[in-house]
Amino acid sequence: MTKLISKELENIAIKAKNASIIMATANSEQKNNILIKLKELLTSNFDFIQQANQKDLHEAKKLVEKGQLSPSLYKRLALSETKYNEMLKGLDDVVNLPDPVGKILLETELDDSLVLKKVNCPIGVIGVIFESRPDVVIQISALAIKSGNSVILKGGSEAINTNIVFINIINEAFDYFKEIPEGVVSLITKREEVRSMLELDQYIDLIIPRGSNEFVKYIQANTRIPVLGHSEGICHIYVDEKADLKMALTLCLDSKTDYPAACNAVETILLHKNVSAVFIPQMLEIFNKAYVEVRCEKGLIDRLNLQNIKIASEEDWATEYNDLIVSIKEVQDINQAINHINQFGSGHTDCIITDDKNNAEYFMNRVDASGVYWNASTRFADGYRYGFGAEVGISTNKTHSRGPVGLEGLMIYKYKLYGRGQIVSDYSKGLKQFKHKSIKP
Amino acid sequence: MTKLISKELENIAIKAKNASIIMATANSEQKNNILIKLKELLTSNFDFIQQANQKDLHEAKKLVEKGQLSPSLYKRLALSETKYNEMLKGLDDVVNLPDPVGKILLETELDDSLVLKKVNCPIGVIGVIFESRPDVVIQISALAIKSGNSVILKGGSEAINTNIVFINIINEAFDYFKEIPEGVVSLITKREEVRSMLELDQYIDLIIPRGSNEFVKYIQANTRIPVLGHSEGICHIYVDEKADLKMALTLCLDSKTDYPAACNAVETILLHKNVSAVFIPQMLEIFNKAYVEVRCEKGLIDRLNLQNIKIASEEDWATEYNDLIVSIKEVQDINQAINHINQFGSGHTDCIITDDKNNAEYFMNRVDASGVYWNASTRFADGYRYGFGAEVGISTNKTHSRGPVGLEGLMIYKYKLYGRGQIVSDYSKGLKQFKHKSIKP
Repeated sequence: MTKLISKELENIAIKAKNASIIMATANSEQKNNILIKLKELLTSNFDFIQQANQKDLHEAKKLVEKGQLSPSLYKRLALSETKYNEMLKGLDDVVNLPDPVGKILLETELDDSLVLKKVNCPIGVIGVIFESRPDVVIQISALAIKSGNSVILKGGSEAINTNIVFINIINEAFDYFKEIPEGVVSLITKREEVRSMLELDQYIDLIIPRGSNEFVKYIQANTRIPVLGHSEGICHIYVDEKADLKMALTLCLDSKTDYPAACNAVETILLHKNVSAVFIPQMLEIFNKAYVEVRCEKGLIDRLNLQNIKIASEEDWATEYNDLIVSIKEVQDINQAINHINQFGSGHTDCIITDDKNNAEYFMNRVDASGVYWNASTRFADGYRYGFGAEVGISTNKTHSRGPVGLEGLMIYKYKLYGRGQIVSDYSKGLKQFKHKSIKP
Repeated sequence: MTKLISKELENIAIKAKNASIIMATANSEQKNNILIKLKELLTSNFDFIQQANQKDLHEAKKLVEKGQLSPSLYKRLALSETKYNEMLKGLDDVVNLPDPVGKILLETELDDSLVLKKVNCPIGVIGVIFESRPDVVIQISALAIKSGNSVILKGGSEAINTNIVFINIINEAFDYFKEIPEGVVSLITKREEVRSMLELDQYIDLIIPRGSNEFVKYIQANTRIPVLGHSEGICHIYVDEKADLKMALTLCLDSKTDYPAACNAVETILLHKNVSAVFIPQMLEIFNKAYVEVRCEKGLIDRLNLQNIKIASEEDWATEYNDLIVSIKEVQDINQAINHINQFGSGHTDCIITDDKNNAEYFMNRVDASGVYWNASTRFADGYRYGFGAEVGISTNKTHSRGPVGLEGLMIYKYKLYGRGQIVSDYSKGLKQFKHKSIKP
């Protein structure tokens, strides 16, 4: 593979790496002061930022008309006053979060005057690749600053004017704090630089791609850097034999219709064979009213003599609709439901509706997903709703961070060993014995 | 990229995946009973295993003579009685470890009767690729069983007979426990299957390569599966201006000579300019006696008029000798030492020798490595010495697990949400408010 890294990009990465070493040692007050200054500058520059955003929107509208940009990306590009205020509120939230750096996770006396501490520390340099939403620049930068990391951002070209203004304001905030070197937050703007970024494993410690499933898979396949990724959200609800059907109706409706484009919306509802005949007609009624298209297994349509229902095929089980569409399948028992979810699900969020505690635990222990729910809407899968205060993203990874990822997803740890001149050969020769006395936890 | 996955290999992966779902729910007694039975079978089959090992050694000897296998790999292939007993002792240790599955990491009452629990659970299916040492089969399988994971092992062809016998014995142990389906531990033997294994991201959740730096980098570049990898061990000792030089001599000697082939052996010693003139002659004396080759910066050789010393070049700073060789460099101050380590080190283990607490903390906070030590031998970087009881490997990653990795490296978590029919739209409409009351920790 030819190296594609420009000198300019490498310099950005080196600066980010060097700055991350200092950021790792910044105290909470220093980091919060930067965030408070940033909020101040964002407030006073509101009109200026709006101008840049209008410029992006103007150009983007032409692209939408030409069919080169999706209307949903266009919509997410706009910085309405409401969105802007939410963004500023988000900065307050991050200031109020406890500082994760320096927390002692484990402390062991290996021997007299030989103490091992496992201490929380920032990962180092995070690369974030995202589309459209320029407020992501502020949100992710705030999280990086609070956690003591550097971040290299690559936004979409459709938001370039807004993104550049945001980055300039962030750097202006840093200018007030001379003890922090430049390069904590930087932006790269050229599309071809994404590929180069993926080769900078010497400097970048983690890549967070925010985009489609295909995009995340492309990133994973083309870098040695660990990727904190979110693949699809194919979420399920299993209505158990012992479900409260009234509750099931409410939960299915909320999980599908509260925000159908979200990754935590339900896509497939599995019905125990003993409830389907009663449940389906009621469900069709409320889903029809909510303009939800229901797709159903052929066997079930025939048996229940359902009218005007689309047939769900195997392809449906593996589809994230992101829309007001839901598929329905009947299962013989809880095990078939679990097997279906483990085969077709994306490991995001899956729910059982039942009044039976044992069935609930059985399901929650066997379904391999970041969120396993009992009698609750799948839409609860979200960092804010979980009480994390801020969200880096949602991960369907099974290493590092899983599910809604808060600040802790940007943290790792180091081992600090405090000695008085101890050597290992004393222990290997049996002259000394380890004590391994646990001090914490 | 063409799919290279054979039906046979895919079946192994599917079985491993299905078995992992059941293993995740096995209780401590079930898992320990399998390990106890395994130890029993390994004890009674000692002679049989020795025969298989002799066969491997016989073939491997021919390869060594032809120069097709390194003598060090040959040496690590042999299962001496001592090594065998250590392996059995290791099984006892794993039995005695606390079960990591089910531990509650976080518990929050999101609202009345809506409780979120973050619960430790196994990752799922682990792929391990290793060379030579057949005892790794037993060690890794034991860790996988205890943590409730499935594991697919790929050993080197030089150990094939011993590995196959080990796998058969492991499966014999499982046969006594009919509630666990087959496929928890499996072995693949063909070299070309490594590449296929790397494509099985649908089934395999984590790859652990145990081999050379080049090998680990090859794996990282050729898979979408997360890799728990150990790159080089370029460890440093910085002898500070305020060091106790007698202690420094002892620590440098132990860190280099206790086991020079280990990744935690020191490779470069950095000397503060105010200590080098006094320290170097003493160091040369003890290192000469220990047959350690010392390589030194040209400037320092000239200034101190050192005789018969090899010159260290920039290449030395980036070299893991794995041998009785050490390089020496003078630094102007602690910052230059830190910068040198962050530039040339591998993020493994780096030590400062000083009597000054502030200098120690300054160094430990700014050196970006999995282990940062104050007045202790770099050789302490090891799972057993850290008190973890068992070691999966040492990681220089900066996500998931860092440093010596115990059982917790094979664990992730899931979020269990316990509700009573709550829906999200009640909260988005402001009809209900989250409480986010922390129950644990």
